[in-house]
Amino acid sequence: MSIQDKFARLANDNAPGQEVRQTDEGLAGVLRGDRLDGRPVDFSHGDVDAHPPSPGSFDLFAAGVALGGAQAYTEYRGDMGIREAAAARLVAFTGAPVDARDGLILTPGTQGALFLAVAATVTRGDKVAIVQPDYFANRKLVEFLEAEMLPVQMHHASAAPGEAGLDLAGLEAAFRAGARTFLFSNPNNPAGTVYSPAEIARIAALAAEYGATVIVDQLYSRLLYSGCAYTHLRAAMPGSDNLVTILGPSKTESLSGYRLGVAFGAPQIVSRMEKLQAIVSLRAPGYSQAVLRGWFAEPEGWMAERIARHQAIRDDLVARFAAIPGCSVRAPEAGSYLFPRLPALTITPAQFVRALRLQAGVTVTPGTEFSPHCADSIRLNFSQDHAAAVAAVERLAALVERYRR
Amino acid sequence: MSIQDKFARLANDNAPGQEVRQTDEGLAGVLRGDRLDGRPVDFSHGDVDAHPPSPGSFDLFAAGVALGGAQAYTEYRGDMGIREAAAARLVAFTGAPVDARDGLILTPGTQGALFLAVAATVTRGDKVAIVQPDYFANRKLVEFLEAEMLPVQMHHASAAPGEAGLDLAGLEAAFRAGARTFLFSNPNNPAGTVYSPAEIARIAALAAEYGATVIVDQLYSRLLYSGCAYTHLRAAMPGSDNLVTILGPSKTESLSGYRLGVAFGAPQIVSRMEKLQAIVSLRAPGYSQAVLRGWFAEPEGWMAERIARHQAIRDDLVARFAAIPGCSVRAPEAGSYLFPRLPALTITPAQFVRALRLQAGVTVTPGTEFSPHCADSIRLNFSQDHAAAVAAVERLAALVERYRR
Repeated sequence: MSIQDKFARLANDNAPGQEVRQTDEGLAGVLRGDRLDGRPVDFSHGDVDAHPPSPGSFDLFAAGVALGGAQAYTEYRGDMGIREAAAARLVAFTGAPVDARDGLILTPGTQGALFLAVAATVTRGDKVAIVQPDYFANRKLVEFLEAEMLPVQMHHASAAPGEAGLDLAGLEAAFRAGARTFLFSNPNNPAGTVYSPAEIARIAALAAEYGATVIVDQLYSRLLYSGCAYTHLRAAMPGSDNLVTILGPSKTESLSGYRLGVAFGAPQIVSRMEKLQAIVSLRAPGYSQAVLRGWFAEPEGWMAERIARHQAIRDDLVARFAAIPGCSVRAPEAGSYLFPRLPALTITPAQFVRALRLQAGVTVTPGTEFSPHCADSIRLNFSQDHAAAVAAVERLAALVERYRR
Repeated sequence: MSIQDKFARLANDNAPGQEVRQTDEGLAGVLRGDRLDGRPVDFSHGDVDAHPPSPGSFDLFAAGVALGGAQAYTEYRGDMGIREAAAARLVAFTGAPVDARDGLILTPGTQGALFLAVAATVTRGDKVAIVQPDYFANRKLVEFLEAEMLPVQMHHASAAPGEAGLDLAGLEAAFRAGARTFLFSNPNNPAGTVYSPAEIARIAALAAEYGATVIVDQLYSRLLYSGCAYTHLRAAMPGSDNLVTILGPSKTESLSGYRLGVAFGAPQIVSRMEKLQAIVSLRAPGYSQAVLRGWFAEPEGWMAERIARHQAIRDDLVARFAAIPGCSVRAPEAGSYLFPRLPALTITPAQFVRALRLQAGVTVTPGTEFSPHCADSIRLNFSQDHAAAVAAVERLAALVERYRR
């Protein structure tokens, strides 16, 4: 495969955060009506000004800088003391042992952890089961490694409450067809669903039966709304040689600017991840690692309040979307994503997303980034200023009417 | 290729910075004599406590945090304002235009830039010309991508003053054999040589003749000792569609803890690098990017003093090594590496490196990390406390006598 062909599959023109590079070509003659005034809202990622970093994070960073060389240069997988502290907290959080020395690695962002986990597990020609819809990079990682994606559908819109709606028969079919890796996010990005205890148990059983490696991205697993029960896959597969869990403080804790991720699980996979980290980015973020000293040790009540604020935004936005005729939306059980399905429009979904940005100052991510079957959906990260987010969705609703078929 | 085979080629047991994970197995019955007292020195990397980060760097980081979301979330290739400022300074430094919008990308560390540049250029089965000796990750990047390495020798020990000693006929032979990528560091890591104007002109001419892409790692190109003339390859290949230059503030400026790298050159390569960054680490380091605002804008005289201090350490250490009978060393023209060749010993070079750490508290990197032909050499990063470094090399000399054949 030529390098050009290989990279054509990694196009990120519509990826969240890249909208600033778009031009308005192709929209001439398509846009109707005037611009709607209002404070612009970028739903492609969370607003860390509206929901600031967890308290004390900057002071921890400053203390890391003051430590000097000992913090700047650590093992490639990160400082042992920081790994030990994180491991102890992750045992308490996930309900299963964590090997701080050999079974945990710090990475530049959770994206870094995801890349290393997949590239340390999957090689050319391997078959990988990928959920649709799921995090947009999952598919691209498989493409980059010249592996083969076996899609498994998640019927989030029609699933029973408390279930993600994964097609478990489809997952088994993928394993039967040769998939030896299963990569998925829980809570799901973009749909905000949480896998039920029965779904997790079945995934664990199938992975054991087929000897498959599972990489589970739990980036949003601390941001659970009232009534949501979360099941950690690693507690259902204790001591598995075939499981890596990915987590990080970028989302609920708003520490994304420090670029920190954590992966933990099977030591032989973590060992390969470190070998790869050595040539991909050398080591875990030097000074930033120090910020993890405060992770899972936030002040009493801080996390509860952060969740409550997000739940209130969720409820208001879900109500706004539900009021748009022909629009369907499932209230997320966790995380900060909404994934509504829009009614039929006179312009293409891609054109609508661009019109939304140009005419209403509202940036969202097209559903096709997450699944080829979700062209009529859009993803919104609702970790935003509450009032600005509500007003932005009202402008979005007005544009839906403007372009309604 | 199985994932196990693929990663066996990426072993980093002897990589600089990973010594803490080594055990003393295999040394029983090999060590002779007592431990030599003295302050431990880790020559595997620079000491940023002895040579602290450039002035104002922490304040720039703090200002980035204060900017909030605008600094935490940027284009994947980095903030446009920071890229524009860096581009202007890199024009002045390298003597050739830099396209801030489309021809420059910020990455997590220069290792990140190197990975992205190579992986955006080389695909499976491609032939890549690699210098021996050169930076240890170059070979591993080629291995990871399942490409083929065509080695080109650099005769640094016997080269004329002012020349790196690259086998230019060997380079042409590699191109003739099908290499379409050439990856090298200038100043050379580990030998500290700088390519002469004639060598650079010949590399440029050969690259043009064979349509090859060149990736040049200039990480140490600001740390030039008196009498050294540096030639920027990009000034010899202006506007080339086939050149990427890599630089960063981790070394001379001691900003490694912020994990910052920069790559600049052909826009179509930078575009692919950004697509890959999206799935490898998502974006350039959020808050850390802000530290680049002070890059190439250090206080008057600061860089000259930093270079003078390193030159003084260089001179003392070169004299110490030259005084060891049978040891040969070339004084580096740039950078902070010494790459002396040791006399014949009664133990293997790998055992000597471990003995040095255990018996003398001196950590160095074995020459085999840089070339299979350099087993009797060791690399020392002499960006250390001056007196401690001299004392450490004296202990090293004592151990050479202890184990001399």
